Amino acid sequence: MISQQEITLKPRRRGFHLITDEILNYIPELKNVTAGLVHIFIKHTSASLTLNENADPAVRSDMEKYFSRLVPEDASLFEHTLEGTDDMTSHIKTSILGTSVIIPIKNGKLNLGTWQGIYLCEHRNHGGPRNIVITIIGE
Amino acid sequence: MISQQEITLKPRRRGFHLITDEILNYIPELKNVTAGLVHIFIKHTSASLTLNENADPAVRSDMEKYFSRLVPEDASLFEHTLEGTDDMTSHIKTSILGTSVIIPIKNGKLNLGTWQGIYLCEHRNHGGPRNIVITIIGE
Amino acid sequence: MISQQEITLKPRRRGFHLITDEILNYIPELKNVTAGLVHIFIKHTSASLTLNENADPAVRSDMEKYFSRLVPEDASLFEHTLEGTDDMTSHIKTSILGTSVIIPIKNGKLNLGTWQGIYLCEHRNHGGPRNIVITIIGE
Repeated sequence: MISQQEITLKPRRRGFHLITDEILNYIPELKNVTAGLVHIFIKHTSASLTLNENADPAVRSDMEKYFSRLVPEDASLFEHTLEGTDDMTSHIKTSILGTSVIIPIKNGKLNLGTWQGIYLCEHRNHGGPRNIVITIIGE
Repeated sequence: MISQQEITLKPRRRGFHLITDEILNYIPELKNVTAGLVHIFIKHTSASLTLNENADPAVRSDMEKYFSRLVPEDASLFEHTLEGTDDMTSHIKTSILGTSVIIPIKNGKLNLGTWQGIYLCEHRNHGGPRNIVITIIGE
Repeated sequence: MISQQEITLKPRRRGFHLITDEILNYIPELKNVTAGLVHIFIKHTSASLTLNENADPAVRSDMEKYFSRLVPEDASLFEHTLEGTDDMTSHIKTSILGTSVIIPIKNGKLNLGTWQGIYLCEHRNHGGPRNIVITIIGE
């Protein structure tokens, strides 16, 4: 069984955002899957998806602080800066963090660890809505 | 055909560890799969999985040296440090390296390159056992 | 339906290369897939795959500049340097960027965002041909 849909998430401010519950709301068919995988894919090059700690909001703000330091908005380093100093840095962060997460499904639920949640990582200062494709392969 | 199981790997010291053979021991059903994919997923936010060189142990120690330098344990950078200076840094390394690897299956075997092996990356100083979900989708 | 093949891409100079069209040429069967996933996997530890901006070539050269700065070829940092200063750095970049990309398939086409393309990231100075496994799971 394969099910697939495309959704649009509302614009979010720059930073790391926990979206597990929002994603789950879109896939009620999950409860019919005994075993399988869900692939969540972001159709952009300036925002990414990752899995990380779902409890302390300081993890998300520390992630933003760290990655903004790791990929500094120093125009002298980059040629691709037409859209601003957050343009090329967003592309780089996207490739470091990745454009998809894949999570096992077991007995109708995401089989995440206790502390794992899905993060949308918005790297642009003004990012706009983000399109996501969710594909479930299971039985 | 979908097969899925959850296993627990014994605690390992901080660093990068080659676990290909240990994973293979858990999936004897691989030999019945002509073509497909195996998804290996770690249910944690302070340890990760990656593919890298399976021969020289110095690659693993160089990886540990590099990533510990890339994400320094400098408490002044982070707010989320309740569990120690290796807490937030472990979350960051997990998102950089990723929580799953997906490998093609061909004629009953993992279709890895000659030099590729599966690494468990333990980012905590005292990490405990690690839970892994292995999902095979194939025919 | 599962289809799988192994291809060899010609040697490329060190840097980031857009290979979307080349990959598409190898998978004409894509047009028969209504919904599914394609997994593209590189069988190497010194080259990687990622998704990023498909338009401005400066994104690719900025990526090369950035990652070469992020992982400096400083022999004093690494033990695994038998094959040169670009040896261990290539392994590290491979684990940061990843060895596979997974893209949704919809109505016979890759469901990529407008600006997304597939990059081959060649991290070695003289990398040789690169082997890629393409697996399609769909219906």
